[in-house]
Amino acid sequence: MCANTYEHLLLYFAVPCAGLVLNTVSHRLSAEHLAHVLDDADVRVVFIEPSLLERAGPVLRALDRVGHVVVVGDPGPPSSDADLRFEDLLDADPHVGDFAEGDETRAAVICYTSGTTGLPKGVVYSHRSLVLHALMVLQADSLGITEGDVVLPIVPMFHANAWGLPYASVFAGADLVLPGAAHGPLLLVDLIERYQVSVTACVATIWRDMLPHARGRDLSRIRRALTGGAPLSPSLAREWLEECGVRLNNTWGMTELAPSGSIARVRKDAADGSPSEALLLPGTPNALVRLRVGDLVDGEPLTRRSGAIGEIQVSGPTTASAYLGGVGAERFTPDGWLRTGDLGSLGPYGDLTITDRLKDVIKSGGEWISTIDLENALMENPDVAEAAVIGMPHERWDERPLAFVVPRPGTTLQPQAVRQDLLTRVVSWWVPDEVIVTSHLPRNGTGKISKADLRVLGRKATDRRTNQ
Amino acid sequence: MCANTYEHLLLYFAVPCAGLVLNTVSHRLSAEHLAHVLDDADVRVVFIEPSLLERAGPVLRALDRVGHVVVVGDPGPPSSDADLRFEDLLDADPHVGDFAEGDETRAAVICYTSGTTGLPKGVVYSHRSLVLHALMVLQADSLGITEGDVVLPIVPMFHANAWGLPYASVFAGADLVLPGAAHGPLLLVDLIERYQVSVTACVATIWRDMLPHARGRDLSRIRRALTGGAPLSPSLAREWLEECGVRLNNTWGMTELAPSGSIARVRKDAADGSPSEALLLPGTPNALVRLRVGDLVDGEPLTRRSGAIGEIQVSGPTTASAYLGGVGAERFTPDGWLRTGDLGSLGPYGDLTITDRLKDVIKSGGEWISTIDLENALMENPDVAEAAVIGMPHERWDERPLAFVVPRPGTTLQPQAVRQDLLTRVVSWWVPDEVIVTSHLPRNGTGKISKADLRVLGRKATDRRTNQ
Repeated sequence: MCANTYEHLLLYFAVPCAGLVLNTVSHRLSAEHLAHVLDDADVRVVFIEPSLLERAGPVLRALDRVGHVVVVGDPGPPSSDADLRFEDLLDADPHVGDFAEGDETRAAVICYTSGTTGLPKGVVYSHRSLVLHALMVLQADSLGITEGDVVLPIVPMFHANAWGLPYASVFAGADLVLPGAAHGPLLLVDLIERYQVSVTACVATIWRDMLPHARGRDLSRIRRALTGGAPLSPSLAREWLEECGVRLNNTWGMTELAPSGSIARVRKDAADGSPSEALLLPGTPNALVRLRVGDLVDGEPLTRRSGAIGEIQVSGPTTASAYLGGVGAERFTPDGWLRTGDLGSLGPYGDLTITDRLKDVIKSGGEWISTIDLENALMENPDVAEAAVIGMPHERWDERPLAFVVPRPGTTLQPQAVRQDLLTRVVSWWVPDEVIVTSHLPRNGTGKISKADLRVLGRKATDRRTNQ
Repeated sequence: MCANTYEHLLLYFAVPCAGLVLNTVSHRLSAEHLAHVLDDADVRVVFIEPSLLERAGPVLRALDRVGHVVVVGDPGPPSSDADLRFEDLLDADPHVGDFAEGDETRAAVICYTSGTTGLPKGVVYSHRSLVLHALMVLQADSLGITEGDVVLPIVPMFHANAWGLPYASVFAGADLVLPGAAHGPLLLVDLIERYQVSVTACVATIWRDMLPHARGRDLSRIRRALTGGAPLSPSLAREWLEECGVRLNNTWGMTELAPSGSIARVRKDAADGSPSEALLLPGTPNALVRLRVGDLVDGEPLTRRSGAIGEIQVSGPTTASAYLGGVGAERFTPDGWLRTGDLGSLGPYGDLTITDRLKDVIKSGGEWISTIDLENALMENPDVAEAAVIGMPHERWDERPLAFVVPRPGTTLQPQAVRQDLLTRVVSWWVPDEVIVTSHLPRNGTGKISKADLRVLGRKATDRRTNQ
């Protein structure tokens, strides 16, 4: 349970190299999910930031198998919940042990899915999978990290190996800038400028938050500005390019893919040749990632005809073929492919288009409405900073879209004006019957917008209206 | 037995994907070695250029297990030694079969060592090894081939997988320029200019031959000009850089390494920061190549102190741990490392320096003379086009160097003047007692200078002198 620190990087290597398994644990889990994750992975030693001790203490005390709790970094006030300090361990035995040789398929790291539905599920990465993943993202057409790069992983190291950046950077001999427990968009922009960062990665929300602080800064060394975890809106990409000269680079991945699936890039034979357009797409799959499109209901693979829409399925040597303990078996096809829950299609070169998350798809009057396309259209409105769309049950049309919008600082939004503006951008039956203006959108543990929380808010709004 | 052609590339993929094994066979083997290579690998079907049929026919007829001989490309005059044509096979069944799934460690390709000592030895590449090798050389700091590259493998595809370029290029989606059976330095320079080649590879001899044709051409797209198989002389590198703006990039490899071991590159923390100097070195080993230095006699690994000189040993997932049929077991240490026969050392970052081929080292009066350093010093003489040095037995000093030099076109060389010039560049006891001026140097099947043939010439010269 560490921030993006030097000590965390040591644990990334020391634990697997000692023949043990590293379980990177989100700081934002509920007590129930935290207890599940530590128990399910059979955790024996916990390394923890002091600031998390108070909240995690009761959970740790209740787990008999946790033998040691090691405080990492500044220990803060004394705590009865920790018996060791990281620095003391290093001082006590500076000897570097031998690498524990063994079967390359043995476990090295466990990451848990974010658990938006039910309990988090464990995904086990083998040594083999980590090496192949690093080789894969180091391809020149993927991340292409070199010894000369300066890499800042903003995405937390407790989440899906920070998209593979720490392992790949050490593999390539690049410099790593680790922001530690400090955070906030201003600090991050300061780090990018001060250390002349060339590769960085975070979710779109953080890119949005950093933008006001980035104007006028020297960010000229950035050559890979990765975003992921959610579709990249054209308006955000345009603002970064036009205001700061930084080209955001979309990626697509999942904890189950270790985690990189694809990285946007400009194909040499792209029809339109427009780099900024191409970088919005999830891109062609990485070298060892095989994609196919399956039937939404039974998962049967569809024909290989390009453009067929269905659930994206993945297989390959860096893709999980099961969850820890065999849970979630319904997420895998009988022939071992992962059902991603993403709705999309493959182009003639195998390039991926994500249409929606399956559970976010809105079926209105027998026709689909893409929440992603609707959200992007809402954000084309110059007064809208962020937008999210969910489907709400509807008597006549089965489902209808409900939109949440956050106004840009210094502007106000009228729901009716937002709907009017949207009519110029999408077909009329896509326009939500209701638009809710809010100051911020709820997020889950990995920084993504929480559609589950939005559904709760949506139901409350419906109830209020019904009761009026 | 094919040239660098489209058909050969098809065989690179079709044979292993059908679950069979591709044996790429040099065109330059003696009848004895050719018979050995086809028999040892249990070859059943031969694909052959028509121009090679006459010479290979008698060997093929004597091998009972060769069931079919397929002529590739223009069939030329009818021959009783071939029963099938490549094109007819494609026309007869255009169906693309399924990929033969199976254990990743099964054999995919066999290459034979060039057999400078004894019979050629078979090195078997597994599917796993070929995939890992492609991933490895596609790293941005290695070849870093992208979809946008145009790759011209000049090094023959029958030799060590053409240094891995065909597989890596297809893996990355790059364009390949295949020169076919045509050759000659003028044609190659034409191809580089016409197709705006960005990556190419050949031995130093071919770089030397291409230079006169390269002046004034547009070779500006070249970003990796790879050379290997022998040390890169500073004078050749300087001429290409100064006269054509092309920076030659040294590499080091062996058939046993599948074949890439290291590629020269400029380290970000290089002390002198001089790019052209750094690119002369064999470089830091590739990602999956482990190097160590062993005792010259018993092969025991030396201390890890940087700078210790000994025999370079290699291990890793792309390195052979045996030859086909278990021959040449003395080339491997008890713990499975390959003894390369190269004398060298490792720097503080694991960067490789090759001092000499073990069998080329000259021991004069108890002290070593490096043939590589001596050859480079000879080529610093502006009138010397090429130079080679061998050790000759000597009564008093055990061994003394003997130099062969080729004058530049339009110049003449006097042995005594060459020795005099050399005195300004090396210590006096390194200067060869005899310098032989010749119009060309003998080469072996892979285009390297044949030191074995030079030793025969050297003995003849000595005998002549003794008899006078």
